[in-house]
Amino acid sequence: MNKKEHKTWKKKLHEIIYEADTPAGKLFDVILLLLILISVLVVMLESVEHLQAVYGTYFQIIEWVITILFTIEYILRVSTVKSPLKYIFSAYGLIDLAATLPKYLGLFIGNTEALLVLRSLRLLRVFTILKIVRYVGASNDLLKAIKASRAKIGVFVFAVVVLSIVLGTIMYLIEGNADSGFTSIPRSIYWIVVTMTTVGYGDIAPVTALGQFFATIVMIMGYGIIAVPTGIVSSEYSDVKKHKINTQVCNNCNEDHHGDHAKYCHQCGERL
Amino acid sequence: MNKKEHKTWKKKLHEIIYEADTPAGKLFDVILLLLILISVLVVMLESVEHLQAVYGTYFQIIEWVITILFTIEYILRVSTVKSPLKYIFSAYGLIDLAATLPKYLGLFIGNTEALLVLRSLRLLRVFTILKIVRYVGASNDLLKAIKASRAKIGVFVFAVVVLSIVLGTIMYLIEGNADSGFTSIPRSIYWIVVTMTTVGYGDIAPVTALGQFFATIVMIMGYGIIAVPTGIVSSEYSDVKKHKINTQVCNNCNEDHHGDHAKYCHQCGERL
Amino acid sequence: MNKKEHKTWKKKLHEIIYEADTPAGKLFDVILLLLILISVLVVMLESVEHLQAVYGTYFQIIEWVITILFTIEYILRVSTVKSPLKYIFSAYGLIDLAATLPKYLGLFIGNTEALLVLRSLRLLRVFTILKIVRYVGASNDLLKAIKASRAKIGVFVFAVVVLSIVLGTIMYLIEGNADSGFTSIPRSIYWIVVTMTTVGYGDIAPVTALGQFFATIVMIMGYGIIAVPTGIVSSEYSDVKKHKINTQVCNNCNEDHHGDHAKYCHQCGERL
Amino acid sequence: MNKKEHKTWKKKLHEIIYEADTPAGKLFDVILLLLILISVLVVMLESVEHLQAVYGTYFQIIEWVITILFTIEYILRVSTVKSPLKYIFSAYGLIDLAATLPKYLGLFIGNTEALLVLRSLRLLRVFTILKIVRYVGASNDLLKAIKASRAKIGVFVFAVVVLSIVLGTIMYLIEGNADSGFTSIPRSIYWIVVTMTTVGYGDIAPVTALGQFFATIVMIMGYGIIAVPTGIVSSEYSDVKKHKINTQVCNNCNEDHHGDHAKYCHQCGERL
Repeated sequence: MNKKEHKTWKKKLHEIIYEADTPAGKLFDVILLLLILISVLVVMLESVEHLQAVYGTYFQIIEWVITILFTIEYILRVSTVKSPLKYIFSAYGLIDLAATLPKYLGLFIGNTEALLVLRSLRLLRVFTILKIVRYVGASNDLLKAIKASRAKIGVFVFAVVVLSIVLGTIMYLIEGNADSGFTSIPRSIYWIVVTMTTVGYGDIAPVTALGQFFATIVMIMGYGIIAVPTGIVSSEYSDVKKHKINTQVCNNCNEDHHGDHAKYCHQCGERL
Repeated sequence: MNKKEHKTWKKKLHEIIYEADTPAGKLFDVILLLLILISVLVVMLESVEHLQAVYGTYFQIIEWVITILFTIEYILRVSTVKSPLKYIFSAYGLIDLAATLPKYLGLFIGNTEALLVLRSLRLLRVFTILKIVRYVGASNDLLKAIKASRAKIGVFVFAVVVLSIVLGTIMYLIEGNADSGFTSIPRSIYWIVVTMTTVGYGDIAPVTALGQFFATIVMIMGYGIIAVPTGIVSSEYSDVKKHKINTQVCNNCNEDHHGDHAKYCHQCGERL
Repeated sequence: MNKKEHKTWKKKLHEIIYEADTPAGKLFDVILLLLILISVLVVMLESVEHLQAVYGTYFQIIEWVITILFTIEYILRVSTVKSPLKYIFSAYGLIDLAATLPKYLGLFIGNTEALLVLRSLRLLRVFTILKIVRYVGASNDLLKAIKASRAKIGVFVFAVVVLSIVLGTIMYLIEGNADSGFTSIPRSIYWIVVTMTTVGYGDIAPVTALGQFFATIVMIMGYGIIAVPTGIVSSEYSDVKKHKINTQVCNNCNEDHHGDHAKYCHQCGERL
Repeated sequence: MNKKEHKTWKKKLHEIIYEADTPAGKLFDVILLLLILISVLVVMLESVEHLQAVYGTYFQIIEWVITILFTIEYILRVSTVKSPLKYIFSAYGLIDLAATLPKYLGLFIGNTEALLVLRSLRLLRVFTILKIVRYVGASNDLLKAIKASRAKIGVFVFAVVVLSIVLGTIMYLIEGNADSGFTSIPRSIYWIVVTMTTVGYGDIAPVTALGQFFATIVMIMGYGIIAVPTGIVSSEYSDVKKHKINTQVCNNCNEDHHGDHAKYCHQCGERL
């Protein structure tokens, strides 16, 4: 095989693996999707005790087959990509590696304590489902809206955390002595978040009249607070759809309302 | 009865059954609505043990009367519609059939096991309530907005599922050994969905400090996530109301922002 | 007192009671608001057993004082309004009457069974809080938006009810035999509503794997569904604020997008 | 040190403490942020019994160090600000004082009862986290939107409270005699709020058929109600972003839609 042939071969493989417009590329993607789904399913079912007891051996076989196939995929990806190092240390590359490595490590490790850690690592094989993200595409309006809302949602989450700490401390003062589960400030903060997000497990619930009155206020507050992120996303999404803004944020002045083709910040002249 | 008379008769029946502008047509619709409501009510009440014990016979009589009336309706619909086969295999046709058939099957089946299956099938008579949908109309703004959001809500649901699997596995690693109900990954995923959607039954709740801390993060995350579908529907609904977009989606390139009178996709030239 | 003096007197009283621009009118309103709040507070506290045991006599005295003052207010309103009958049978008139009558009825009724009914009626004194609504005013943007959304929210609620009945029946089929509280279709429907609205009491929760899987789907569905009313109100509210629509709905064709000064329906020519 | 030198010194300190554009100012802010976070963390961990038992002495030392540092900060702020009295009685000034005072009071108070009150006061040190608010800035779009929604959200909360009282009383009439926790009207109101806000603890849940039916209606109602604040914030936020309105509200007539450069109310001519 001369160098030219090798190059063509490499190029063809690259097309199959990284592009989806040829029939071979589409087939490759479909098979990969199926393998990912089976892999995740097996990890999930293995954690159910009575299924593991009965079908444990089959799960082992499927795991090994998939691990070997993923290994082949990983080697092919590394060998056909232009800059292998860049791929290896990219998010996709690390996920691809994490999907195969733990299984092999199990062969070389003998003592039980390390095996326990490995058992946890093997569970992380479920992260292979993140490989699917490759097929969704990152350039749709929804993601743009979420990106544009980032800073505002950050401020919002920060405000919720501050509010939870303050309200949680007050609730601890009110219900701390009653036998109702508010045994420490962190637990009270946990309860405040459970309540303000309207989740409401009921594992901790106020029993004193004052506690229930305060809880009522927190809930109605939560009502108003839940409106804020919705308002942000909904408004940003409308804007993105109208193509009025893009998601470039100036590194200098944080201005984030630039035209689609803008190259310099219209507020401070910084290169975007 | 000569052929012409027959045709007129058929036409009149068609008017009564399928149109609602004549007094006879309106009467037909009102009676049908009442029958549907009674039918669903009887199925619901039959499932309450102590009511079934006392009024069981009455329920049987009402069921047979309604079944016979629905059968007559079904026969009339088939015989007056232009293309009977198209109706029979349409969604409405199948619902209409499902509303009558199980009751008759009960007469021909003797052995108890099949009867048990049949009991389940009879419960599906509750699906007759879907017949009501005929009267709501499918061409309103709301449905248009939901249709226009379809693809985006699909991506969103997919993202929620992926996130639930990943977070559920992490939670299983954290709380798996504590005696708090996180006995397998599928159960942990169930808990993540219960938490992220802010339902929060409390049948499973974290007990370790780390578990509660992680739960707090999941809840605040759920806060942000719930904003996404609301933003989508609310934004699309505004658009539909402004008559700026319609719900045609190009079969070739999935572009969905076409003018109301567009006949070809403005992205790829495909016929819409 | 001649007829003219009587008329002036009546007019002045009308001003004080029905208008709030004079100092006397403002004072009247403030006193009335205070009386309403005290009245509601007393009804609420009377229902707390240990407070009723200790302060019962004081509650009785306050109740009688307030009842007599409300009676005076009622008589004044009837005697100063232009068309007394119209007022008496208006929503406000009926609430005003309901705030006083039950207390008096207690004097004339002796037998214990009727007193039990009366006890319930007395609790309805809490409805006097609805008198406060008079002071909020009905002509703000928010109410307009809700009115404009009426028909659409109606359709939405109807869809939720139909969906709940269908899903509730399916859940009854899945979990009906397990010992998890799904004892009848109505209870299953109650559970579906508890779940889809993300309330999630946890008094009934699925225990079978299939039931939990189905519950997961219902919850994610509820996620999408909760977006719909928000989208509607948010969009209509934007419209109302832009003064693009008003809330007149044509009696003939239900068209609801009329200009602010429109006198005839632009769809069918009906007088609005 | 002559007067001029003193002035320069004071000015420099003011720059460091109140401004963040010099390197010294930035360092000051970072250290302060760290101290606040440590302070809040210590208060939270002290409330966990088994941590307090083991690390109690360390917590005491950290608390004293931070208290002294906060005291120095407080003295510096008072001595460098232009109008010390205005600062002392501002919200920030009071929070800064509350972060130090309780610790010192503990030294002068001997009897145990007052110490119990003091223990509560010390917990309020958690409020020091509010000092962080200084660094978020108050002039962003989000806060503007919330300010613009203030009046409408007020009306909404008022409506929810009235509705809760009325529905709570009805629920008390329905479930009051059943043994399901609806023991008084205030508790029933607490349950209504828990349900309408979709929190749903499940500590109180209806058991009678009528109660569950009524609960279903309340939940679907809550569905519609949760849409209202979201609609308001989302719509106001869109407006603020379009710079169409500002947040000035006329003191005379409460009109709140003024142009950005408006100096007089366009409804009543009042100076804004």
